[in-house]
Amino acid sequence: MTELWLIGIGTGHPGHVTLEGRDALRDATTVLIPRKGAGKEDLAHLRHAILNGAGATARVIEFDMPVRDDSLPYQDRVARWHDEIAARWQFALEDAPDGPVALLVWGDPGLYDSTLRIAARLSPAPRLRVIPGITALQALTAAHAIPFNTVNGAVVVTTGRKLRDHGWPAGAETVVVMLDGECSFRTLDPEGVEIWWGAFLGMPEQILHSGPLRAAEPEIIALRAEARARHGWIMDTYLLRKQ
Amino acid sequence: MTELWLIGIGTGHPGHVTLEGRDALRDATTVLIPRKGAGKEDLAHLRHAILNGAGATARVIEFDMPVRDDSLPYQDRVARWHDEIAARWQFALEDAPDGPVALLVWGDPGLYDSTLRIAARLSPAPRLRVIPGITALQALTAAHAIPFNTVNGAVVVTTGRKLRDHGWPAGAETVVVMLDGECSFRTLDPEGVEIWWGAFLGMPEQILHSGPLRAAEPEIIALRAEARARHGWIMDTYLLRKQ
Ligand SMILES: C[S@@+](CC[C@H](N)C(=O)[O-])C[C@H]1O[C@@H](n2cnc3c(N)ncnc32)[C@H](O)[C@@H]1O
Ligand SMILES: C[S@@+](CC[C@H](N)C(=O)[O-])C[C@H]1O[C@@H](n2cnc3c(N)ncnc32)[C@H](O)[C@@H]1O
Repeated sequence: MTELWLIGIGTGHPGHVTLEGRDALRDATTVLIPRKGAGKEDLAHLRHAILNGAGATARVIEFDMPVRDDSLPYQDRVARWHDEIAARWQFALEDAPDGPVALLVWGDPGLYDSTLRIAARLSPAPRLRVIPGITALQALTAAHAIPFNTVNGAVVVTTGRKLRDHGWPAGAETVVVMLDGECSFRTLDPEGVEIWWGAFLGMPEQILHSGPLRAAEPEIIALRAEARARHGWIMDTYLLRKQ
Repeated sequence: MTELWLIGIGTGHPGHVTLEGRDALRDATTVLIPRKGAGKEDLAHLRHAILNGAGATARVIEFDMPVRDDSLPYQDRVARWHDEIAARWQFALEDAPDGPVALLVWGDPGLYDSTLRIAARLSPAPRLRVIPGITALQALTAAHAIPFNTVNGAVVVTTGRKLRDHGWPAGAETVVVMLDGECSFRTLDPEGVEIWWGAFLGMPEQILHSGPLRAAEPEIIALRAEARARHGWIMDTYLLRKQ
């Protein structure tokens, strides 16, 4: 593998793919894809729709995702897992035809995604090309038709874990939260905070809810639990703003 | 105007346009466009290329951007300016054919952009549709092939003005700065800070520079001044990370 293209495909809407991304999918010789995990059939369909829509003729090569070793401490566990994924990419690509290898990356390859860190482990190092994609944050603000920031205001982008561990970021006005499996907004003082929440953004199943955090909190917790039970999985993100 | 579509077009690369954005440009009845400002001919060409590439057949209606009244205090000045733009949109659209009106918005409509705030002033209120676009932040991290965040790390998105006025955001590890006409990174203590800077991201003129802030600072200041003099204008943004 001499060229590796990381192609941001957006967050579930086939129309999130950019013209640059579509052309890259069309020009790639090989597309490397994880064999689908249980319960995420929908995502396999989406990938298919995107490749077909792009007119891709690349050879599709699949690899199995390794499992994480939960006995290791967090940072070690993630590092080992990335090592193992990189090894599997190289193994899977041993007989790949010459030419650029493409990976479809959810959202944007830079935002809470490990593909760049895995790619950095490849040796010899391929030439990397990163194609930006629509992130869950843009999908969220677009769906609610709200601005990301106030006029000249700052925004903190953070994770559910950080919000739980450290509370409301000091001095922040707007906070957007990703990777939150636990509705961590419920650990905050809701006074003066508004929330705009979205799940399955860009997808037919999209769910939106917003309002003052105090009132919206139980509603979102219920909506999320119900949707998660129905689909078997969920992806959600939200924006919080303090007056 | 009963439907207003705000279409994020990305940050200068015609390939940043999403398939959803392209389809919306094709389906719009009218495209509302500011008459080009001095020195930004390149951007008029880009808009043209995007509309042609999309196969748009919409009627293009232009309006003149008002000038800001610099005698007013900042918040008033911005509010009045937005009022005035909204009035000009309505005036320009008086004889527009029925059907959706599209506005091409630089980057993503949610990120440091006033279009949503102007649209909120329209009366009667049109149905709003926001189509997400690639932001300068994704264009920056993609061009440098770097992650936006560290593993489980937070990111502060802010402006040059805020960075100058308040310094390094308390407790932040990664800071991304937009709307900075003054290389405000030079007001920071460079110790332990790395910078990834980019100008004209996604455009043929794209310039990148990165390194430890102490060494990179004078280099970026010189690169920026030179490029700005050559083009007559510049757009740049950067990511700062503290070890
Ligand atoms: C591993 S991160 C990947 C983010 C992705 N690279 C991006 O640019 O959006 C996954 C997190 O993104 C958010 N997310 C991704 N897609 C989403 C969607 N369609 N709806 C809601 N949240 C989504 C959720 O917070 C989820 O926990
Ligand atoms: C008014 S804001 C609009 C941002 C836009 N809505 C987005 O999503 O990127 C303009 C700022 O975005 C950044 N920017 C936009 N396009 C850029 C480009 N092509 N290269 C570098 N910076 C850019 C600069 O910091 C500039 O001051």
